[in-house]
Amino acid sequence: MRPPIGALCWAIPEGFIPRSSTGKARTPRSHETARILNAADRDAHVEIMVLFIDRDPVGPYRVTVPAGRSRHVRLDDLDDPRPIPRDTDFATLITSDVPIVVQHTRLDSRREALVLPSTIPHAGAG
Amino acid sequence: MRPPIGALCWAIPEGFIPRSSTGKARTPRSHETARILNAADRDAHVEIMVLFIDRDPVGPYRVTVPAGRSRHVRLDDLDDPRPIPRDTDFATLITSDVPIVVQHTRLDSRREALVLPSTIPHAGAG
Amino acid sequence: MRPPIGALCWAIPEGFIPRSSTGKARTPRSHETARILNAADRDAHVEIMVLFIDRDPVGPYRVTVPAGRSRHVRLDDLDDPRPIPRDTDFATLITSDVPIVVQHTRLDSRREALVLPSTIPHAGAG
Amino acid sequence: MRPPIGALCWAIPEGFIPRSSTGKARTPRSHETARILNAADRDAHVEIMVLFIDRDPVGPYRVTVPAGRSRHVRLDDLDDPRPIPRDTDFATLITSDVPIVVQHTRLDSRREALVLPSTIPHAGAG
Repeated sequence: MRPPIGALCWAIPEGFIPRSSTGKARTPRSHETARILNAADRDAHVEIMVLFIDRDPVGPYRVTVPAGRSRHVRLDDLDDPRPIPRDTDFATLITSDVPIVVQHTRLDSRREALVLPSTIPHAGAG
Repeated sequence: MRPPIGALCWAIPEGFIPRSSTGKARTPRSHETARILNAADRDAHVEIMVLFIDRDPVGPYRVTVPAGRSRHVRLDDLDDPRPIPRDTDFATLITSDVPIVVQHTRLDSRREALVLPSTIPHAGAG
Repeated sequence: MRPPIGALCWAIPEGFIPRSSTGKARTPRSHETARILNAADRDAHVEIMVLFIDRDPVGPYRVTVPAGRSRHVRLDDLDDPRPIPRDTDFATLITSDVPIVVQHTRLDSRREALVLPSTIPHAGAG
Repeated sequence: MRPPIGALCWAIPEGFIPRSSTGKARTPRSHETARILNAADRDAHVEIMVLFIDRDPVGPYRVTVPAGRSRHVRLDDLDDPRPIPRDTDFATLITSDVPIVVQHTRLDSRREALVLPSTIPHAGAG
């Protein structure tokens, strides 16, 4: 009933989790989120690899997005195999065994005015 | 005369309508808008499904975009079959019987500085 | 020498030129810009159609982007066949006889904090 | 092991490096960055051409992105064959001998509120 939409691989070249933040509560803290939509009728097993400028990639981090569900993965919550280092530029590669759609949101509360760019990443073959 | 452009299916992984807002009038209130362009020469019958993290999808919400027209659908105005819950993350699947182009705009006036990201969502098969 | 890149048709569902603005000089005034890149080795003859919610399309507005050049078209400067109405939602269809790449920028200076979303529009067939 | 993802050519129609800036340190200074992800298993040799409105293109600027690495190229750091002129609109064409993924970030600190649009540019043939 739901149309097949999405891709099996997504790339987000921009990534940065600052250490400091003006917000006190969880919500306005600086963070990056990968919002993953699974419109298919079976669960998506998703793997996230983190690439850096001057060291080997880290991962995969594994998350499952149930069929017909959306999941918002905060990258600063990932800790297995290890937390993503703060104050360090990184890039993200997201692969799945079922077509998914990914949106990338970055919120930076280091200055008073929130900056919340929202981007549809680059999608690889379907 | 107008070129065929667009896709039959669009996905917006990010969605969130906050309950509170600093704006008083309708225009600056917090809202999300799906701007739908129908460049074809016949009307587009559009269906919007809303997906969640931990509950079943809701919809479809139905809107018609006339031929050669653009329509801006404010998601907080949708109420049939029921309003989209506030303060809840959701994702949006938009399908049409005619190729359309969708742009997603989010305005959040909870803080003083407006944040208005604008995104072209992921397009499925043509 | 330069690679063929771009599309013959682009669609920007979002468009709005506000009447008021806090900026006094030309640069910070509220405006929308279609930035057009012509990486080909011959001039691109570009036509811009403006679509509305409740009236017939207006256009085409015609601009030429020379080979190997970039041109930034401010939509509030277009006046032939007639200026785009202010305080009115519109959408934009851009077609060309040579592949071009379009980026859409919106600057709104009605509030103190500038909001400058920047979007790659939806590209039609190559 | 890593999926092939990306394109051999990318286009960014928007480019502008302002001369003035409120930030004093390097990080918050006004700048544009092309974030380049190389998910392939061999180095990517990247060439950047800069196009203008009313003069001939400048370049190529050459950078290497190692296999499995991400590199953030600040356009105001490029100086060979010559620095990109300030206060001048330009566009960017990025080509590579290996598929890469590019994200474009613009930070403008001329006003107090930071504006940081982030865009996935237009990708040419794979």
